[in-house]
Amino acid sequence: MHSLHFTAESSSNGVVERDFTVGGVPGVLWSPASATDRAPLVLMGHGGGAHKKHRAMAGRARLLVTGCGFHAAVIDAPGHGDRPRTAHDEREIAELRKAQAAGEPEGPIVVRYNARLAELAVPEWQAALDALQELPEIGADGPVGYVGIGLGMAIGVPLVAVEPRITAAVFGMMWPDALIEKAKRITVPIEFDVQWDNERIPREASLALFEAFASKEKTLHANAGKHMDMPRFEADSAVRFFARHLGGAVSSPA
Amino acid sequence: MHSLHFTAESSSNGVVERDFTVGGVPGVLWSPASATDRAPLVLMGHGGGAHKKHRAMAGRARLLVTGCGFHAAVIDAPGHGDRPRTAHDEREIAELRKAQAAGEPEGPIVVRYNARLAELAVPEWQAALDALQELPEIGADGPVGYVGIGLGMAIGVPLVAVEPRITAAVFGMMWPDALIEKAKRITVPIEFDVQWDNERIPREASLALFEAFASKEKTLHANAGKHMDMPRFEADSAVRFFARHLGGAVSSPA
Repeated sequence: MHSLHFTAESSSNGVVERDFTVGGVPGVLWSPASATDRAPLVLMGHGGGAHKKHRAMAGRARLLVTGCGFHAAVIDAPGHGDRPRTAHDEREIAELRKAQAAGEPEGPIVVRYNARLAELAVPEWQAALDALQELPEIGADGPVGYVGIGLGMAIGVPLVAVEPRITAAVFGMMWPDALIEKAKRITVPIEFDVQWDNERIPREASLALFEAFASKEKTLHANAGKHMDMPRFEADSAVRFFARHLGGAVSSPA
Repeated sequence: MHSLHFTAESSSNGVVERDFTVGGVPGVLWSPASATDRAPLVLMGHGGGAHKKHRAMAGRARLLVTGCGFHAAVIDAPGHGDRPRTAHDEREIAELRKAQAAGEPEGPIVVRYNARLAELAVPEWQAALDALQELPEIGADGPVGYVGIGLGMAIGVPLVAVEPRITAAVFGMMWPDALIEKAKRITVPIEFDVQWDNERIPREASLALFEAFASKEKTLHANAGKHMDMPRFEADSAVRFFARHLGGAVSSPA
């Protein structure tokens, strides 16, 4: 088993940020600055073309750490952030840019590329979780959640489908093609964010994916607007979802 | 214009409850016990067969008053609570019970009966709002919201469609048949709660109703489960929705 190696540490406004690597994969762990007992952990999958410290990740982490006293961790997906791109990454990204420039559908390329990234990332996440649970402030028995939008969902659905330590998940904004069969194996509570007027992912496809989850408790949040218009209050909603399911209390949200 | 007459007052755990009548219609106003400046008002429409002090109303009111410092008001719908039933009410209720006992669809009866109740209730709500806004702790210029599930939605959609003082609304759980055309005239932010596995209201009908709202900001919350399984956390979500749109801050939610 790979251990977690911390490589940098900083702190601001009650949140400690520690960079780490595990088995060569770079990640970041955000934790409450005030010493506490063991606290729940939320794994966060970043979006396509983003990275572990993208502001969406740092923003969600701050809400989870300061609002709930939870830990939040992100690792760079293969070919993203501080990780090298392979020739395959370069080819797929070039294909994607070409389709976007030509106004052609990006779905088929994103679906196959993200499915490949998920094959690589699922065991990386499991190794990272092993190592994170070695930390005394997290522990091996504590509650674990997962949140991922876009690529973070493409990786998260297969991860949650095979990882019994993850007991609640928030997903959003991914084509269902490669995910339906894996969603059928997920039974933990989920919150699923979609954009009602998404110009990329057909509405019916998103509704079919929501239908596929075997979870007894599942909630669809569909907001008016296009793909990039997902409202910020859904990040707050995700925090409250994890507070309900991982056992913390939310303090002083706006 | 009818004035508001207070008929009873009590107080518990920071919430003042005042019974009132306005133009002969009985209602209840819940307010923060600690004297404050003017605060936003949320009108709440109760469900079919329920009444102004049903525990769902008292529970939502407590969340709004203690969580946001808002006022919350309910009036009994025609034929409900402390109001007499007309021969028409009795006939429709008998029809409904007959259909339920026979296992026949209740939709057609609920739709036509609630549409009739809405015709009566909309001007009653407008008169109640006039009178409530005469109170110095509410005022004529303050923000006003509306929340109604079931019958509360059947009344609320036509009310919000014609009442510009209401600037945000939460609805849920009503057949769309009598509401689609009125929903098309609503442009204020809405949150719309549906049950994904509703055995009474077809899923496609609910999605079509959500689609009909002309609001630029609208959010569908679809929860797994049948008609009666709507989760309690949607009441908390509605409070945060009103806090966002009517301008308060939520304090100490669970």
